Amino acid sequence: MQRYLTNRRMTIAILVIFGYLIYAMAFGQHDTEAVPDTDTITQQVDSVPAGLETDPAGDISHEEPAEEATHGESGGEEEAAGHGSNEVADVLLGLIVILLAAKLGGDAFERFKQPAVLGELVLGMVIGNIALVGVDFFEPFKYSLTLEVLAEIGVIILLFMVGLESSVAEMMRVGAASFMVATFGVIAPFFLGWGVSILFLPEHSVYVHIFIGATLTATSVGITARVLKDIGKIRTREAKIILGAAVIDDIMGLVILAVVTGVITAASNGGTGISSFEIFFIIAKAVGFVIGAIVIGQFLMPHIFKVAAKFKVSGVLVSLALMVCFLLAFLADFIGLAPIVGAFAAGLIMDKLYYKDFTDRGEHHIEELIEPISIFLTPIFFVHMGMNVDLSTFGNTSILLFAGVMSLVAIAGKQVCSLAIFDKTINKISIGLGMIPRGEVGLIFAAIGSKLVLDGERIIDTGTYSAVVIMVMVTTLVTPPLLKISLLRGDKKKQAQTSAKS
Amino acid sequence: MQRYLTNRRMTIAILVIFGYLIYAMAFGQHDTEAVPDTDTITQQVDSVPAGLETDPAGDISHEEPAEEATHGESGGEEEAAGHGSNEVADVLLGLIVILLAAKLGGDAFERFKQPAVLGELVLGMVIGNIALVGVDFFEPFKYSLTLEVLAEIGVIILLFMVGLESSVAEMMRVGAASFMVATFGVIAPFFLGWGVSILFLPEHSVYVHIFIGATLTATSVGITARVLKDIGKIRTREAKIILGAAVIDDIMGLVILAVVTGVITAASNGGTGISSFEIFFIIAKAVGFVIGAIVIGQFLMPHIFKVAAKFKVSGVLVSLALMVCFLLAFLADFIGLAPIVGAFAAGLIMDKLYYKDFTDRGEHHIEELIEPISIFLTPIFFVHMGMNVDLSTFGNTSILLFAGVMSLVAIAGKQVCSLAIFDKTINKISIGLGMIPRGEVGLIFAAIGSKLVLDGERIIDTGTYSAVVIMVMVTTLVTPPLLKISLLRGDKKKQAQTSAKS
Repeated sequence: MQRYLTNRRMTIAILVIFGYLIYAMAFGQHDTEAVPDTDTITQQVDSVPAGLETDPAGDISHEEPAEEATHGESGGEEEAAGHGSNEVADVLLGLIVILLAAKLGGDAFERFKQPAVLGELVLGMVIGNIALVGVDFFEPFKYSLTLEVLAEIGVIILLFMVGLESSVAEMMRVGAASFMVATFGVIAPFFLGWGVSILFLPEHSVYVHIFIGATLTATSVGITARVLKDIGKIRTREAKIILGAAVIDDIMGLVILAVVTGVITAASNGGTGISSFEIFFIIAKAVGFVIGAIVIGQFLMPHIFKVAAKFKVSGVLVSLALMVCFLLAFLADFIGLAPIVGAFAAGLIMDKLYYKDFTDRGEHHIEELIEPISIFLTPIFFVHMGMNVDLSTFGNTSILLFAGVMSLVAIAGKQVCSLAIFDKTINKISIGLGMIPRGEVGLIFAAIGSKLVLDGERIIDTGTYSAVVIMVMVTTLVTPPLLKISLLRGDKKKQAQTSAKS
Repeated sequence: MQRYLTNRRMTIAILVIFGYLIYAMAFGQHDTEAVPDTDTITQQVDSVPAGLETDPAGDISHEEPAEEATHGESGGEEEAAGHGSNEVADVLLGLIVILLAAKLGGDAFERFKQPAVLGELVLGMVIGNIALVGVDFFEPFKYSLTLEVLAEIGVIILLFMVGLESSVAEMMRVGAASFMVATFGVIAPFFLGWGVSILFLPEHSVYVHIFIGATLTATSVGITARVLKDIGKIRTREAKIILGAAVIDDIMGLVILAVVTGVITAASNGGTGISSFEIFFIIAKAVGFVIGAIVIGQFLMPHIFKVAAKFKVSGVLVSLALMVCFLLAFLADFIGLAPIVGAFAAGLIMDKLYYKDFTDRGEHHIEELIEPISIFLTPIFFVHMGMNVDLSTFGNTSILLFAGVMSLVAIAGKQVCSLAIFDKTINKISIGLGMIPRGEVGLIFAAIGSKLVLDGERIIDTGTYSAVVIMVMVTTLVTPPLLKISLLRGDKKKQAQTSAKS
């Protein structure tokens, strides 16, 4: 009995300690700090939940609207590398969880012959929704502004890597095909979405239908790019066409949004619509950026690398590559395009020939140098994306039905892209499948729509917003397995043809 | 005349466009966005200015206390990779500026035979203080929480790299020497600081003197580690002793702080002081962490690497290394130590032998994989540190005098460290010089002191706080050139001795 008691006490003691540690880790380390807690400066970090949330942007309401509202435990002097700077501790813990989830999820899915990125998304979804069964340890990571920014830098680095693995010449070769694919892939979903909207929201105005159509236009190329990389297909012509088309349909989507928004704003003010000059300016800015970045970049890069090669300090090549990547991403954002469009362009213009001075003296290629940074940051994007999927949306059947039809239309609409391909050697089906994923652009359209009011009604109401979010989730989750099957089947077909011929 | 006018107009037009671009880049891109500005969710990011600020933590007051208070331009849905998410654009611009400044400053100083890190600090100071002459383009970067966190991850990665280049066995060999150096280097500055405080603040209580003494104890090893790396001395015995001593004096400093704070808090409450059990607990926790991390880590790491080698997904080695680094940094912070202590321990326990499975199949060593990440993130720490130096403090002569004497005492106090070295083959002077830099720990002590109130008076008032900040700046700026001279002179001496013998 004595023995039993001791053992039991021991077990309880261990459980208590363990529980306390978990508790303290999750809810702030202050409690166990040797340094006295001197809360003085309130550092508010009301992170807006990113992307795949169900609440329309207007009325986001979480249990922790201002979680971590009081930082400043180290006396408001959050010196970098300082003791107990709380945001840093949170981010470190978040990074550990995300990196672990990414590798566990990626490994599990690779074992089942699925792309690693799907594992990252799914494990992210698990982490992000485990609060539904009462575990809210992971909740703070959803709302960390720093993790969100790191996630975005992660996808910027991914598209930069993808750009590095392509060249301007290769993109030019598929330019016409990409343009056709993008055009078909914008027109079909736009009108299909319009139709679905008429079906499900008959009492709403034509502007609502146009807006829903617009949310279905732009491809989110991050997922497709990752899948293509994961299965070693990023250098194929199919990949180039999809990447080119995604850049072009991002521009088209932007133009549609700007025009539609302008028209609605003018209509609600009783005005006459936006001028054709304004429309022209929007188009010119976006097209000008992409062409300008590539033309000027190709001209400037050799000179920049030549100057950089004269630097005596170490690490110049990595730093320069990152600077150019971030600069074009920033400028793309500045002009109103997705930052990843700029990052992709930055990768395109960095030809291996331009930095021969560096590789000749034994330095690694930019791809090799950027890869570890990509391994670090890219999974943050995908796990974070998964984390922000709200599974509780799946409860409302009418929204679910609307979302289901919208998803079907979103998927079917992009299959029209394959009609734009006349070259028989190209795997048409993979092109259509690769264009399926919708993401940030669709969500942003929906969010902007939920701000626009016409005749006292919001263009995008709460239910519609949730449906858009589900559509984004479905298109994102459906693409990796479909694309993988289609590309590998294409390979087999080619092999069969080759062996039949011989 | 016609020609002249046209040219002039052209010039003015170009100037206006240029000025507008700079303006727009600095103050928000919204103005030029095609997407309508739908401010809805107010995302407050009141970043506390980091580190080397003059205001005592209690009354930080800047012109832009809530700069960037209204994010949410993309309709509150700041989806990663989304359009126009403003924090991301700010961070991208900040990263470009910081990376450029780091390489320009580093290169310039290397040309003058100075360590690159000094160039990063000085260019950071220029960027951070250029607002004094009216250019406030760079001001937002000082207050970006994300950049601050990235800076701290940068110094964590640096100390991880330094740990990777050392081994537990090597550290054990210098253990006794490090302990002696740390002890001498804590006692001397502590009492010297106490004395200076009596001299300059005679009317204040003994607790103030103790506190000022305590702010002078802990070495900030980041600068020294960078200098040792920059000049290729990180693998010397001097380097190991300094690194070991810095870890130990961080622990000692923590203990002093905890005890002094406990005593003052008890005194102000009219209590009886803190119990010896509490003091023991603080010491045990800190010492236990460092020893535990190394012992358990050495035992666990081979097993962890063995499991990890079975993962099918790519990038496992980088991810695992980062996870262990972040985990120990987090735990160090959790226990009340500087995160960099944990990162250093993480590097120590990763022996090349443990991950032979990876290198045997052609993967790079962890050092090589982490290096590009370090090149990316580490300069952020040093440039950011320079940016937060406030040169306007140099206006007040009485503070300047106090600061000057405190700096002298801080520098002289650590030279006592060389007395702890009995081995004649070791460059004693370099050890003393390497221990000079004070940083985050001193600042945090001062910040905590400014929160403690005894008999209606703050332990650390505004003037004293500024003096501490200046002391940190001086010790930081003075170390790189002195250490470089001393180590290289030591080399010459050895060479001379060798050639005299032969």
